[in-house]
Amino acid sequence: MNIIKYPAKEDWKEIVKRPHLDLSQLNTTVEAVLGDVKNHGDAAVKRYEEKFDHAHLDHLAVTEEEIKEAEQLVSSELRHSIELAHHNIAAFHEAQKFTGSKIETVKGVTCWQKSVPIEKVGLYIPGGTAPLFSTVLMLATPAKIAGCKDIVLCSPPNSEGKLNPAILVAAKIAGVNKIFKCGGVQAIGAMAYGTESIPKVYKIFGPGNQYVMAAKQQVSLHEVAIDMPAGPSEVCVIADENSNPTFVAADLLSQAEHGIDSQVILITTSEDMLNKVKDEVNVQLAQLPRCEIAAKTLENSQLVLVHDSQEAIDLSNTYAPEHLILATDNYEELANKVINAGSVFMGKYACESAGDYASGTNHTLPTHQYALAYSGVNLDTYNRKVTFQHLTEDGIRSIGKAVVCMAEGEQLEAHANAMRVRIQSLKK
Amino acid sequence: MNIIKYPAKEDWKEIVKRPHLDLSQLNTTVEAVLGDVKNHGDAAVKRYEEKFDHAHLDHLAVTEEEIKEAEQLVSSELRHSIELAHHNIAAFHEAQKFTGSKIETVKGVTCWQKSVPIEKVGLYIPGGTAPLFSTVLMLATPAKIAGCKDIVLCSPPNSEGKLNPAILVAAKIAGVNKIFKCGGVQAIGAMAYGTESIPKVYKIFGPGNQYVMAAKQQVSLHEVAIDMPAGPSEVCVIADENSNPTFVAADLLSQAEHGIDSQVILITTSEDMLNKVKDEVNVQLAQLPRCEIAAKTLENSQLVLVHDSQEAIDLSNTYAPEHLILATDNYEELANKVINAGSVFMGKYACESAGDYASGTNHTLPTHQYALAYSGVNLDTYNRKVTFQHLTEDGIRSIGKAVVCMAEGEQLEAHANAMRVRIQSLKK
Repeated sequence: MNIIKYPAKEDWKEIVKRPHLDLSQLNTTVEAVLGDVKNHGDAAVKRYEEKFDHAHLDHLAVTEEEIKEAEQLVSSELRHSIELAHHNIAAFHEAQKFTGSKIETVKGVTCWQKSVPIEKVGLYIPGGTAPLFSTVLMLATPAKIAGCKDIVLCSPPNSEGKLNPAILVAAKIAGVNKIFKCGGVQAIGAMAYGTESIPKVYKIFGPGNQYVMAAKQQVSLHEVAIDMPAGPSEVCVIADENSNPTFVAADLLSQAEHGIDSQVILITTSEDMLNKVKDEVNVQLAQLPRCEIAAKTLENSQLVLVHDSQEAIDLSNTYAPEHLILATDNYEELANKVINAGSVFMGKYACESAGDYASGTNHTLPTHQYALAYSGVNLDTYNRKVTFQHLTEDGIRSIGKAVVCMAEGEQLEAHANAMRVRIQSLKK
Repeated sequence: MNIIKYPAKEDWKEIVKRPHLDLSQLNTTVEAVLGDVKNHGDAAVKRYEEKFDHAHLDHLAVTEEEIKEAEQLVSSELRHSIELAHHNIAAFHEAQKFTGSKIETVKGVTCWQKSVPIEKVGLYIPGGTAPLFSTVLMLATPAKIAGCKDIVLCSPPNSEGKLNPAILVAAKIAGVNKIFKCGGVQAIGAMAYGTESIPKVYKIFGPGNQYVMAAKQQVSLHEVAIDMPAGPSEVCVIADENSNPTFVAADLLSQAEHGIDSQVILITTSEDMLNKVKDEVNVQLAQLPRCEIAAKTLENSQLVLVHDSQEAIDLSNTYAPEHLILATDNYEELANKVINAGSVFMGKYACESAGDYASGTNHTLPTHQYALAYSGVNLDTYNRKVTFQHLTEDGIRSIGKAVVCMAEGEQLEAHANAMRVRIQSLKK
C-alpha cells in the first residue's frame, strides 16, 4: 500500500489516475466473432461455445426441466438469502416509478413526460468459477418492475453444457423469461443481432471481461444501447480518528479481492487511523482464500492522509469513485457534499457488501471516473421518457407568432408554414 | 412520394427501414483532427478554424462586448420570441426536478437516490446558413436548471470570425457561461480533452454533420459521455378521414425541408385523405424556398394506407419515429398505445414546429429507431442519480446473514468478511 501524506492539490491528478483502458486492440477479434454471429446465427454461436467454453450444445435455450433441477440443487439458506435480496432490490426500484404530471407551460399548451419500458432487454452474466447470481438480481429485478416484455439472459455454460443452478434460481425469482447458454462476444452479438434461438434486444446490460466490454462498445455504435461503459471496480473509504479500523480494513479488502486491477483508496484525516488500518489489512489479508489477488491489488492501492474532512471529500469528488464509504461519524455532512460517486455508503454499518448483495440499491455502477457523467443502473435505465404535447386554439394564439418568427430566423420556411396554416385557420 | 396500400405485416420491415449510416469511413480523418487537438490545444483549433471556417482567430472565447453587440443586432420581435420559448422550455424542464424519498427496504436499511448535476457540460451548435438558436435554448436551458456549473458552448464562426447574434442572445438568455468560436471535429475534441482556452467537459450534447457525429462517437468510447447517437430527422403522421389535409401536408413538408436524408411517413386509414394530402403537398411545395430539398426528400417518403387505427399505431411503434403526430380525433386513445417514439404531438394544433421551438418540450430527440432504447434530452440527461444507503444495527440483523451467505456462494470471502466483522461487533 502506498502511503501519501498531505498531498498538494496539484498532485491529486496522479492519485486519482486510472490505468489506461484501450479495448481497440481487441477490435479485430471481436469484430470477426460479431460478424460471424450476425451472418450465421445459432450455428456460429454453437461453434464458439464449443471453442471457448468447451460445451457441445444441441440447444441454446435453458429448459423448464433444467430450472426445476436447479431449484433442487440450491440450498434453502441460499434460496432464502436470494429471496430477501430480491425483496429489498424490488422495494427500492419499485419506489423509483415515475408519474409525470401535465404542465401547462403557457395558456393552451400542455406538455408531459411518460415513462415507457424498453420492450426487449438483454442481460449478460459472466461465467467463470464464481457464479454472479447477485448480478442476475440487480439487472433483472428492475427490468421486470419497469415492465420490459422480453427479458433475455445469456451466460456461458460449463463444459457439461450447464448453467450454475444459483444463476437459474435467481433468474426465475427476478422474472427473466428467456435464458440462453451463451457467453462472451458471441452472446453480445446474438442479443444485438438476434439469431434463430436468441431474440434481438434493444439494450444490453451487464459486466464481462475485456472482450465482452469491447463487443458491447462495438454494437453500441450501431445496433443497440448499452447500460454504461465499464472498467475495474473501485472503492474509496473516508475515515477519521473515530472510525473502526477492522471494518475499514475489511471494506478495503472486499474490493481488493475482485481482481488485480481493482482500485482501492483510503482517505483519512488521522495518521493514527491510517496506521491502524494498514496493520489490520495485513492481519485480515493472511486469512483470505483470494489473498494473492488482494495482495497484488493492494500494491497499487493508496492510503492518503489529508488535513480535514473538507479536503477528504474534495479529493473523493475529484476521484469520482464507483463506491464511496463514509466511515465517519459526520457521514451526513459529508454525504451532502458528494458530487461525483456511483453509490454512497453512510456510517459504520453500511459496508459495500450490503449494497453489493441485499440492501436494495443496485450494484451495477459507473467505474473508471465515469461517475462524472453516468448514473448506476436504476429503474430509468430500463425506461424511456417519451414527451407528449397538446395544443388548443389558445395554444396557437399563445405561441404561434413566436414559432413563425423563430422558424423564419432559422430560415426554415416550411416549419413556419406549418404554424401559419393553423393561425390562419383560426381567423376563418 | 411512394404510396403503399395495405402492406402485409411481413413487409413492414421494408417500410420502417432507415438508410444505413456508417461513420467509420470518416474515422481516419476524425481521429487525426482529434489527436491534433489533444496534443496541440488552442493552436490546433485555430489552425482548423482557418482551414475549415476560413476564420482567422486570435482568441477563441466570445467576449462580453461581442454579446452586447449581438443584442443590438437581434430584432426585438425575435428576442421576445426567444424569451417566450425559453420561458416555456424552462417551465417544462423545471417541473422535471427529482426529489427522491428515503425507502426503508427492510428494518434498519434505508436507501435513496439523489439527483446530482453533471458539473461540466459542453453544447455543440452547428454553423451553416441557418443559425440554430433554438437548439441553444433546448440544450442550455435544462443544463442551467439542473445546476451544471460549467455550461460551455462551441459553434463555428463565419469567415469574419463572428458567431450569429441570435445564437449569442439565446445563449445569454439560457445561461451559458462560456462561449467559444470553434466548430466541427475540433470543437468536439476541444471539449473532450480541454485546451488552454476551452475547458474539458464530462458530457457533450448537440447535433452536427457526419464528422461531428463521428467525433462524438469516437470520444464517447473513452473520454466523455454524449447525449445520444444521431441520425437524420424524422416524422410520422397518423391521419384519418377527419384530419386536416392542409395541416398534415404542412407537417410533412416541415420535416422534408430539413435535408434530403430526412424521413417522412404518413400512415392513414383513409384513402381519400391520402390523396388529399398528396395533392396538398404538391400545392405547398411549390411555394417553399427550400422546395428542391423538400422535393428530393419526398421521393423517398411513404404514404401508407392501413386498415384501422390499431394497425396505424402498431406500424408507428415498429417504425419508432423521432416525432409522431397524431392528427386524428382519437389522439388520446392512440397516445395511450405509443410504445416507441421520441416526442408525440396530439391533435390538429400540435404541429411539430410547436415542439421544435416554443411549446416547452425538448427538440433533441432520438432518430434512426434509437427511440427503441433512448429518451430525448430532458432534465435527467444533465444529472446523475447517485444512490445513498444507511444501515443501523437492526440493518445488520436484517440482512447480515443473507449477505454472508450470498458472498460465500459467489466465492467472495472478503465480501462475506466485511459483513461478518460487523455481525460479530454486535455480539460483544
